[in-house]
Amino acid sequence: MKIDYLLKNVAPWLTGDGPKADIVLSSRIRLARNLRDYNFPRRMTRENRRKIFTLVTSGIEHTDSLRDALVVELEGLTDLDRQFLMERHLISRELSPEQQGAVIIGKREVVSLMVNEEDHLRMQVIRSGLSLSVCWEEIDRLDTQLEKHLDYQFSPTLGYLTACPSNVGTGMRASVMIHLPALVLHKQIGKIIQAVGKLGLAVRGINGEGSPASGNIFQISNQSTLGKSEEEILNDLEKIIRKIIIHESNGRRLLLEGQLLRVEDRIYRALGSLKNARLITSEETLDLLSALRMGVDLGVLNKISRSTVNQIFIQSQPAHLQKLAGSALTPEKRDALRASLIQEKLSSGNKPE
Amino acid sequence: MKIDYLLKNVAPWLTGDGPKADIVLSSRIRLARNLRDYNFPRRMTRENRRKIFTLVTSGIEHTDSLRDALVVELEGLTDLDRQFLMERHLISRELSPEQQGAVIIGKREVVSLMVNEEDHLRMQVIRSGLSLSVCWEEIDRLDTQLEKHLDYQFSPTLGYLTACPSNVGTGMRASVMIHLPALVLHKQIGKIIQAVGKLGLAVRGINGEGSPASGNIFQISNQSTLGKSEEEILNDLEKIIRKIIIHESNGRRLLLEGQLLRVEDRIYRALGSLKNARLITSEETLDLLSALRMGVDLGVLNKISRSTVNQIFIQSQPAHLQKLAGSALTPEKRDALRASLIQEKLSSGNKPE
Repeated sequence: MKIDYLLKNVAPWLTGDGPKADIVLSSRIRLARNLRDYNFPRRMTRENRRKIFTLVTSGIEHTDSLRDALVVELEGLTDLDRQFLMERHLISRELSPEQQGAVIIGKREVVSLMVNEEDHLRMQVIRSGLSLSVCWEEIDRLDTQLEKHLDYQFSPTLGYLTACPSNVGTGMRASVMIHLPALVLHKQIGKIIQAVGKLGLAVRGINGEGSPASGNIFQISNQSTLGKSEEEILNDLEKIIRKIIIHESNGRRLLLEGQLLRVEDRIYRALGSLKNARLITSEETLDLLSALRMGVDLGVLNKISRSTVNQIFIQSQPAHLQKLAGSALTPEKRDALRASLIQEKLSSGNKPE
Repeated sequence: MKIDYLLKNVAPWLTGDGPKADIVLSSRIRLARNLRDYNFPRRMTRENRRKIFTLVTSGIEHTDSLRDALVVELEGLTDLDRQFLMERHLISRELSPEQQGAVIIGKREVVSLMVNEEDHLRMQVIRSGLSLSVCWEEIDRLDTQLEKHLDYQFSPTLGYLTACPSNVGTGMRASVMIHLPALVLHKQIGKIIQAVGKLGLAVRGINGEGSPASGNIFQISNQSTLGKSEEEILNDLEKIIRKIIIHESNGRRLLLEGQLLRVEDRIYRALGSLKNARLITSEETLDLLSALRMGVDLGVLNKISRSTVNQIFIQSQPAHLQKLAGSALTPEKRDALRASLIQEKLSSGNKPE
């Protein structure tokens, strides 16, 4: 399968660097666009969806970031491959083979573009750390280059038109994946989520809408796409993220000052379990990785790199494991393979002593 | 303090060898004896208790196993030292300074003798593995040698007289400390305890009467001391123990056959926690050691010796830790010291790779 090479890829958003990478895992911006003279994908004929696909795939040849990119049509994919791409944050649950969905994956998975999801085009840029402005520059350039060859639905009063009214205007959703173990430990997270909600942002768990906040990881994104420019939306989001980062940093300092032994105990026990378990679920892995990540970020564990933690984070997911094994696995076999993968990563992925 | 040398001692009952040492930790026999013409200790004057002490300490000079032994009077001991001797199974909670209690500790802690506990003399022999007959030979010789110099209270119809009627007759209590993780995992332990009870044996937790079965360790002992000879009592006890051993062995085989990965997972996770915790309670230590012990016994962990497990088992107890530290410690400091002691033992105590 042509997407299999991704399995060995370490996407740049997993390198664990970039600004504030001790707290912010990644930043992502996506833009929704639709082409004039066509219905939205859900109300199109099969033939028109094919036309959209052709228009977009020829359009990308005029862009820097998606020229010669990998084009994957969902119709040819197994369920496992589809789940695999979802786990890599390259496609959404809504991108479906029934609707002739496709995804175009740029070099190193930084830039990608879904065709015939809810909208004709959904492009995204994802990067490590708090990198909203870099993401914006890249996606804005892609959008501008595409716009020269594709005739977007655009209203002078409303902005870009989208299938769901909640995306009309900029069509932009910017989100930050953020690790907040100290705020969770100090039981301040509820208050923070409430405050962030009042400021017009959405807070979600790791796997998007409705998912629980496994591994103390949260996704924070803008709710409204209308009435403000992209730069204003991004500025407002980044300001709030920076405030949350300060709260989390203070929380971590308090932990180090007042409860060092308890924190170390938690971190080393997580390491001990990850290195020694023979069976481990993805849910438990996320929880233990949260402690491990905190250990790396606090300087308690200095032989493990953030990139190792992030690789385990992605590669221990069910579809990744099954792609690795080359076949579908029962949950117990998955838990066993996950355990051995983690052990291998934690011994080979260590920084030199 | 003269008992401090014990801290570095590895008593022979902790070597983890002897018959059936993969299931039976240790065997112990104690005999209760009283001297004619004196009340039982609780009803004696201080002077008479001193006389008993003098008679016994001169009596032991005629024995092989307690000649030149260490004599420790409880009046001179701190609470910590007293708890320390209790943790080593050398004295009971009932041996008190108020009653001029004393303990005589033989070489390597195999043979010991309490003076002025509930009875004038309580002698014991404790050995690793299922060693009831060896224990019996040793304690019988000690008793015979003492009897030549001490005038025991003895009734031709009842046998040896003791303060509590439950000990009258042989005055003998034989007990076996047994590790039954598979029977606990298979939820068969309740049935076994019930059956053993009906056969006239008592089943207790690790710290004697009323204590819970921490670490899946049980003490099984004879209830009645009357109406049968010592050999018969020991034979009956050993027969039942051997049956329990068969049940436990079968249970372990079933685990290995049907749930190897789950068992290994449990064992290695326990090892991971023991090696990595920075704070650990004695209760959790017992539970994790149970899994570790099972790992050694099943051949899953072959770099750790049973004697290392047993040493941690004894030395991680609260009074042992505080003796090691040289002072009383808060519970948190104890948990921290326990964690570091365990780590040290598990790295230095390993068999060579």
